[in-house]
Amino acid sequence: MLNYLKEEIEKIEEALQTEKLSTHPFINQVSEYLLFAGGKRVRPLLMVLSAKLFSSENFNHDLYRTSLLFEYLHTATLLHDDVVDNAEFRRGRKAARNLWGNQATILVGDYLYAKSLKIASALKNPEVMEVITRTTLLMSEGEVMQLLNLDNQELSEKEYEEVIFRKTAILISAACEVGAIIGGATHAQRESLKNYGFYLGMAFQVIDDLLDYLSTETGKDLGKDFAEGKITLPVIYALETIPPEEKEQLKKLFKKENPSREDFEKAFRIIQKAKGFERAKKKAEEYVKAAKECLSGLPESPSREALIFLADYLLERKK
Amino acid sequence: MLNYLKEEIEKIEEALQTEKLSTHPFINQVSEYLLFAGGKRVRPLLMVLSAKLFSSENFNHDLYRTSLLFEYLHTATLLHDDVVDNAEFRRGRKAARNLWGNQATILVGDYLYAKSLKIASALKNPEVMEVITRTTLLMSEGEVMQLLNLDNQELSEKEYEEVIFRKTAILISAACEVGAIIGGATHAQRESLKNYGFYLGMAFQVIDDLLDYLSTETGKDLGKDFAEGKITLPVIYALETIPPEEKEQLKKLFKKENPSREDFEKAFRIIQKAKGFERAKKKAEEYVKAAKECLSGLPESPSREALIFLADYLLERKK
Repeated sequence: MLNYLKEEIEKIEEALQTEKLSTHPFINQVSEYLLFAGGKRVRPLLMVLSAKLFSSENFNHDLYRTSLLFEYLHTATLLHDDVVDNAEFRRGRKAARNLWGNQATILVGDYLYAKSLKIASALKNPEVMEVITRTTLLMSEGEVMQLLNLDNQELSEKEYEEVIFRKTAILISAACEVGAIIGGATHAQRESLKNYGFYLGMAFQVIDDLLDYLSTETGKDLGKDFAEGKITLPVIYALETIPPEEKEQLKKLFKKENPSREDFEKAFRIIQKAKGFERAKKKAEEYVKAAKECLSGLPESPSREALIFLADYLLERKK
Repeated sequence: MLNYLKEEIEKIEEALQTEKLSTHPFINQVSEYLLFAGGKRVRPLLMVLSAKLFSSENFNHDLYRTSLLFEYLHTATLLHDDVVDNAEFRRGRKAARNLWGNQATILVGDYLYAKSLKIASALKNPEVMEVITRTTLLMSEGEVMQLLNLDNQELSEKEYEEVIFRKTAILISAACEVGAIIGGATHAQRESLKNYGFYLGMAFQVIDDLLDYLSTETGKDLGKDFAEGKITLPVIYALETIPPEEKEQLKKLFKKENPSREDFEKAFRIIQKAKGFERAKKKAEEYVKAAKECLSGLPESPSREALIFLADYLLERKK
């Protein structure tokens, strides 16, 4: 299985290397800085696997090049996010905005967004366009909602789900759905892939938010979400069950302007004692289970195995 | 003619008022602040007239609502421009970024961009999508080029043409071309409308750049372009012909950090003496002439008259 996946990822990497992003070296330079900073190509990979699930034939376009639209779209959102969040770092390196400034970062983000839509439009498939434009609309609306919600310590589990749906799950779901359309899936099969992507995306973000606390490999002295005072699922679960005085203490820690390592450890212990991490992990497992169930009626093939493998792999990842 | 145009514009305004932009009041608030700040609806109007030129039948969608995609797209670029330019004002009012901050302005710009593509995709017409995505790609690439060119005092006429093509003419051209496609134009007719839009857009921007110097109604104490040190066509023409010492003087004036009213008047006189304004006006007239010639083979109709009228009107506008 790993070999099969490795080959597919290599083909995507190859397409990324050879695809001419722009005739302007500067646009390429800024884009490539982030594009080649260790991204896992999850979204293109899911599109390719979803397409191959229904058709082993040659496509009338380069499937791998087409799949890049999801990497470009994702990268565009990261560039704008970094400007909006005043981010200093991204993927362990200086954020693009720290090297080329906010102005260039905004505009190159716009370019990547336009590029991804241009690739999508080359398919001349109105159904694909509908998925992509619906997705980008919900995503950008979600970004605004998130900005307005920044300091909301009363975020409910339901609101959190809405946030991570728009931030992560919808694009992963769209990659799967577009793959299914390209591969010639039936309407029901397409729905299955779309739902698989949704659950996978939800699990992906919950795990991401968990790793922000649990990862020891990233070398961060404290979690980014904690440092930003951002409430995620483990915290929501903790706040649900802890007694009022501990609740106040935890909220105060999340409100601190410049929290210390000690503050982080205090918050960590409160969340851990309240089983916040445990419950969030369980939630991710439920999502992964639901994702795999969506695949049950689909044709058996290496691609289907790969999609199952990816869902399981997600739960085990350490960074 | 004016009545005919007025009616069409009113229908566009009505669509703008009734179209639900987002379910989120904040997005609507920020968007509407700029959408209802006295825009002339040039792009939607051109799309509507171009469509009506070929078909007087009922369209299977609301033509006016569809035309809004060009107003939203245009507004999205203005919001991002204002962030990139650190603009204080827009259309005589505080820029949106001054009221809601850069972060919200970037994200609402992204939303409007996504919204316009969503409207386009609802037409389920791959040709329309191709025009729109090609246009946004060239525009966003142009924005980056312009950013890198900010301090370029050696801008040639050809480079200036490339800048205003990507900044203004291509979107106006796209509005006409999409209208033609929707209206059921032949390939040749579609090309004519596309070219009409191109020349009209070029004229539009040259006049805009001229009015930045010549308009006395805007209440600006000095031209925005001059204040920003931005080289436009009248300056390019002047620099071409004036003697070296005057050239140095003019360039110095454009380089000044905080130029005074007196500086502006000095620059103005140099450009005027060198016939910079005169020649730029003549260039705009040539573009308008070329635009109208594109319409010569097209069916006679009120829409065609309106398109001719608009081209002439452009040369006479005072703000």
